[in-house]
Amino acid sequence: MSTVQKSTARNGVNVEALLGARTALTQTPEAARFNWRATSEWLHGTHSRATVAGFHGLGGEQKHRQTFQFDLDHPEIFAAEDNGATPVEYVLVGLAGCQSAGIAAGAQNRNIQLRSVKATLEGSMDIQGILGIDDKVRNGFDGIKVHYDIDADATPEQIAALVAQSQKRSAVFDIITNPTDVHVTARKV
Amino acid sequence: MSTVQKSTARNGVNVEALLGARTALTQTPEAARFNWRATSEWLHGTHSRATVAGFHGLGGEQKHRQTFQFDLDHPEIFAAEDNGATPVEYVLVGLAGCQSAGIAAGAQNRNIQLRSVKATLEGSMDIQGILGIDDKVRNGFDGIKVHYDIDADATPEQIAALVAQSQKRSAVFDIITNPTDVHVTARKV
Repeated sequence: MSTVQKSTARNGVNVEALLGARTALTQTPEAARFNWRATSEWLHGTHSRATVAGFHGLGGEQKHRQTFQFDLDHPEIFAAEDNGATPVEYVLVGLAGCQSAGIAAGAQNRNIQLRSVKATLEGSMDIQGILGIDDKVRNGFDGIKVHYDIDADATPEQIAALVAQSQKRSAVFDIITNPTDVHVTARKV
Repeated sequence: MSTVQKSTARNGVNVEALLGARTALTQTPEAARFNWRATSEWLHGTHSRATVAGFHGLGGEQKHRQTFQFDLDHPEIFAAEDNGATPVEYVLVGLAGCQSAGIAAGAQNRNIQLRSVKATLEGSMDIQGILGIDDKVRNGFDGIKVHYDIDADATPEQIAALVAQSQKRSAVFDIITNPTDVHVTARKV
C-alpha cells in the first residue's frame, strides 16, 4: 500500500519520462537495442581525432543535437605532442560522467536535493605493460579509485546508498569491471 | 645478426625515444608507475563536466600542456538535454585513440608509411540493463566492433599484423576486454 509522493527535489532529471520509457520498453524489448558509435581519424604521430554524431536506438537512427569531436594524444614525456587527453583518461572521464548521471537520476527518484557532486578519479598503471618490458604486467589500469564528495539534503547513509545504486546501474562501471568482447577488423584501402 | 635500418617512414612518432624509455624503465621500474586522473563536477540533470589536467609518472607529478574539459550528458530521447556525448561514447573514443596511436607507433617501428587510418566503432547495448527492466541483461556493451580502413605503404598482411600488434599493447583494449577493479568511496560534504 505505498503512496506516490510528488518529488520536490529539483535536480533536472526527468524521472517520470525514464520510468515511462521503462514501462514502454518492457512491452517492446526490441526497441531497447542500442548501437553507440564513434569514428576516428589519425592525424599525426599519436594524435587522432574522434567524432560522435549519431547512434541507433528505440528502433531507429538518432542524432545528437550537435556533433562532438575529441582530440587524443600522448603526453610530452612520451615524446609526443600532447594535443589531447590520453585514451585512458577518456575512460576515466566516461566513468565519471556515467556515475554522476546515475547519482542525479537516483537522487531525483528518491527525492533528494543535490547541491554539488564532485568526483576525483585515479587509474593506476604500470607502463611496463604497454612498453612491452614485462609480459606479466597488464596494459590497462591495475585499479581505479573513485571518490565522490556530495553536498545534498541527505544523510551520509542515504548518500552511500545513492552512490551504490548508481554503480549498480552504470554502463561504464560494468564495461570496466567486466570483460567485453571487442572484435577488430582491418582493411587496406 | 640483425642490422638496424634507418627508418624512412614519417608518421610523426618518435620511436627512438620510446625505445630509449623502454631501456631506461627496465633499469628503474618504479618510474613506470603511473596514475592517470580526472575530476568531474555535476552540473544539472545528467549533465556533468570532467577535467583532465595532470598525472603522476616517471617518479613525479606531470602536467598536460593544457587543461582538457569534457561535457557528458544523456541524449534527448532519454529526456535529457544532450549537452555532451554519452559516457559510453567516451569509452569508444578512448578505444579508438588508443589503437590508432598504437598503429602509428607500430608503423613507425616497422618503417611503414601511413597515409590515412580511419576507424569506425560500434558498441551494442540492450538498455533493459541500465533501466533495470531485466537483471539478466548487463548494463554495459554486449560487444564492440572496430573496423580500420588503412591507407599505407604495406601489404594487407602487414596491415593486419600492425593492427593485431596495436591491440596486443593497447591499454584501453585491455581495460575493456578484461576486468578491472573499481573502488568507489563517497562522503557527504
